[in-house]
Amino acid sequence: MQSNVNNNEATRVDHRKLIRFVSRSFEKLGVPASDAGIAANVLVASDLRGVDTHGVIRFNPRAWYVKWLKDGSMTAKPNIRILTETPSTALLDADNGMGMVAGHRAMAIAIQKANESGIGIVSVRNSRHYGMSAYYSMLALPHDMIGIAMTNASRQVVPTFGRDARFGTNPICFAVPAKDERPFVLDMATNTAAAGKLELAVRLGKSIPKGWALNEKAEPTTDPKIAQQARRLLPLGGSRESGSHKGYGLGILVEILCGVLSGTITALNSNQEPRGHFFGAIDPSAFRPAAEFKKDMDRLIRELKSTPPVEGESRVYVAGEIEFETAAERAERGIPLHSSVLKGLREVSELVGVPYDLE
Amino acid sequence: MQSNVNNNEATRVDHRKLIRFVSRSFEKLGVPASDAGIAANVLVASDLRGVDTHGVIRFNPRAWYVKWLKDGSMTAKPNIRILTETPSTALLDADNGMGMVAGHRAMAIAIQKANESGIGIVSVRNSRHYGMSAYYSMLALPHDMIGIAMTNASRQVVPTFGRDARFGTNPICFAVPAKDERPFVLDMATNTAAAGKLELAVRLGKSIPKGWALNEKAEPTTDPKIAQQARRLLPLGGSRESGSHKGYGLGILVEILCGVLSGTITALNSNQEPRGHFFGAIDPSAFRPAAEFKKDMDRLIRELKSTPPVEGESRVYVAGEIEFETAAERAERGIPLHSSVLKGLREVSELVGVPYDLE
Repeated sequence: MQSNVNNNEATRVDHRKLIRFVSRSFEKLGVPASDAGIAANVLVASDLRGVDTHGVIRFNPRAWYVKWLKDGSMTAKPNIRILTETPSTALLDADNGMGMVAGHRAMAIAIQKANESGIGIVSVRNSRHYGMSAYYSMLALPHDMIGIAMTNASRQVVPTFGRDARFGTNPICFAVPAKDERPFVLDMATNTAAAGKLELAVRLGKSIPKGWALNEKAEPTTDPKIAQQARRLLPLGGSRESGSHKGYGLGILVEILCGVLSGTITALNSNQEPRGHFFGAIDPSAFRPAAEFKKDMDRLIRELKSTPPVEGESRVYVAGEIEFETAAERAERGIPLHSSVLKGLREVSELVGVPYDLE
Repeated sequence: MQSNVNNNEATRVDHRKLIRFVSRSFEKLGVPASDAGIAANVLVASDLRGVDTHGVIRFNPRAWYVKWLKDGSMTAKPNIRILTETPSTALLDADNGMGMVAGHRAMAIAIQKANESGIGIVSVRNSRHYGMSAYYSMLALPHDMIGIAMTNASRQVVPTFGRDARFGTNPICFAVPAKDERPFVLDMATNTAAAGKLELAVRLGKSIPKGWALNEKAEPTTDPKIAQQARRLLPLGGSRESGSHKGYGLGILVEILCGVLSGTITALNSNQEPRGHFFGAIDPSAFRPAAEFKKDMDRLIRELKSTPPVEGESRVYVAGEIEFETAAERAERGIPLHSSVLKGLREVSELVGVPYDLE
């Protein structure tokens, strides 16, 4: 997922100010202070990395978190608890609370278990939208561990050969530490193009490539507005001959790990929520010395980056590289927020009574 | 991967006869009897399931296994041993022996560990080509567990925007048990189309779709012969706008789990071998009662299969479904083998002195 902000129409906002504002607003909505801080960090981490679709664009009175907290359909002070566990596994009940809070907790448990037994996996049921997957997998990096995060999502992707949507954009995310190179961070929806890319195409008045989406009649469309209305996105691969059965298979795999393992199967639910998640941490030092592992990660990353580019391209990237560069630039210069996003933040300010001090 | 045999040119061979022939031949090449039986099972399981590219098409004096055993470059009687382990993890050294033997052993260890701690993962170094991934992941199914198998492979896939191949077709495979429905078995190369599909297109004199491969100049090609020579396959997605950075990321993820974790990184090796593998088993009953898990798998699978198909298609499949149907048909009617494959088997018969009794 790339930035969908046209920087010319955007105002730069300091990320620390933004975290503070979002955190205080969550508190006013009844979320305990430490949980509010976590949720704010997740949202703004997304904006910092350029994953604008999962950032504060969703922090307004009409969207997910604020709306659900305000109308009481999401629990502000959930009783998150472990239902079953082994030295390497746990099942967590999120008690219909914010996915960011349950996800942060679940990942901490996975890391602790990996510390003791080489791997830890944690399944989460009865949770809500958790934002950007990379936030959770990257929590493993300071521990020199591989982090894993997945979530199911609302039905908007069609199976290969299917007319109707049956599952979500179900992302797969892995973060892997390196030594001197930046970590490998793969955070990918298992359909061709994120829903946010349709929004961007609509805003810019552009058409979308074939292979992204179908229309209401389940025929390929290049019109992003029609695609948005039809909610029939195509799995990664786009068509059978280009491998869409693989994207479809991966999407269902994520539903199995997040939904069937936890008992919260979004693909069988006509509502968008609740959701199930899957988190994991693998400690490479259970297999070989961490220093050797990280040195070999550097070698692999350098080999990939040194690939000569094709005509018309300047470089070959490694997963997560663009996001690290974006985060560095935005941490220094501020996060570019579109006027419509700032409007939403001002509306939250009025709603909850936290002073608006972002511009 | 689908069958690439035109059944009209093929002779049907009983799979039990084929397993016996391959097993005895492996024994004559110095492989211990029980290992020979395992390796023969893996190869013929591939033919049964219609994954012909990984079956006895490779059992001839010029191909992988027989050639390497004959010339001594692969160890017939390896000393496979655990180098490090925890209750949930192990690192195995395959001692340059057959990947099928090491893979079978590794998967057994993963299942045993999952029995005790809910999950087991086993990394394998210093191994060789292991055949079809689904064989290993499916070993978990009788234990009501989720099975995982991945392997790195020889360099023939280009990174997104890259001119040259840097990594392999690196498959991801998961098998998940259901109750009354057949298991979900996803076994997918992370590039657009398996190398075997190029072979098939060449044989049939057909062109290939754009998005499968590049030519020697790293330009898109639709000529399968040129694609075979250039060895520049494209990651799943095909192009950047169609999501090839995701297929590229998944391919590298597999290299990390199989190669960097084990210490046998094929992407940094100009030779095709040795290889590293990654196996895992997850016991759903560590999270919720196995019966509930399997019942929900049935519900999910039925929901997918009940999706109305698009115009021109008769049904929506679930991963592994076509292979189960093919295996049932071939177990009954015999495996259709092309004359060139039978010729290779006769050559092995002459080479090792096992009577040829297949036709």
